[in-house]
Amino acid sequence: MAEKDLNALFLHQLKDTYFAENAIIKALPKLAEAARSEELRGAFGVHLEETRKQVQRLDEVFKLVGEKPEGVECKAILGIIAEGDEVIEEFGGSDAIDAGLISAAQAVEHYEITRYGTLLAWAEQLELPDAAELLKETLVEEENTDELLSELAEDLANPAAAA
Amino acid sequence: MAEKDLNALFLHQLKDTYFAENAIIKALPKLAEAARSEELRGAFGVHLEETRKQVQRLDEVFKLVGEKPEGVECKAILGIIAEGDEVIEEFGGSDAIDAGLISAAQAVEHYEITRYGTLLAWAEQLELPDAAELLKETLVEEENTDELLSELAEDLANPAAAA
Repeated sequence: MAEKDLNALFLHQLKDTYFAENAIIKALPKLAEAARSEELRGAFGVHLEETRKQVQRLDEVFKLVGEKPEGVECKAILGIIAEGDEVIEEFGGSDAIDAGLISAAQAVEHYEITRYGTLLAWAEQLELPDAAELLKETLVEEENTDELLSELAEDLANPAAAA
Repeated sequence: MAEKDLNALFLHQLKDTYFAENAIIKALPKLAEAARSEELRGAFGVHLEETRKQVQRLDEVFKLVGEKPEGVECKAILGIIAEGDEVIEEFGGSDAIDAGLISAAQAVEHYEITRYGTLLAWAEQLELPDAAELLKETLVEEENTDELLSELAEDLANPAAAA
């Protein structure tokens, strides 16, 4: 594959992911506010701090490829976040809200997992080991967050087992 | 958690996923047409047939919960598909198009993996074992498709190793 084209694709996806991370920073406080479980609210708070660090890592990746950090509108994350808003609108305050919020947050995590997974593979193909290292760090964090959310969902479903 | 609320949430997500699967059926031929690698085009064709069966499984799940199969607009999948269209527009015909198409298709797969994962967990909580069985079948298929796409991406990046 011509390296030039893959470089362009990598940069495009980097900008898409940069936009997505910044959109998530705006969305997380809404999710936290709607959560009923203290534990879930705390998890959203922790992930907000983590996401800020992930944006800094993307800043460094932009620098490593000699580009200015900037986003391009990512319609996927906007759609995923809009669905989270719908859940808050329809199920806010109900007994199912935390399950709905976890589902919405896991859709966000899976979007990030797929994007960082691809960016990491492309960074390796393009022989950008420092960028790959940074992308890998974030990928592992996103996978851990997804797992934590699954555990929280189980605890919510079986409060006795979680105690 | 009040079962009534979780039932409503389950039904909402079932309709969202039904809409998503039908949107994917419309999108897959465009991805196949844009693919340069014969193998990738074939994989999209196989997944189209698989997706049609997945819709039939959803029809059955609707029946199991006494509801008429219908979709609600899923903004997430529309955004994810729109990003795939952008990749075709910007990289169509270039050496990077197949890598871009695989990335777009993996974003679709990850969306489905997270949705079916949640639906399966909720079906188990709601004690709907037959629905859970059907959802699990599709979840495994989506995970396999994601893995196959990763393998195809690697083969494309290292044609010598794949031969």
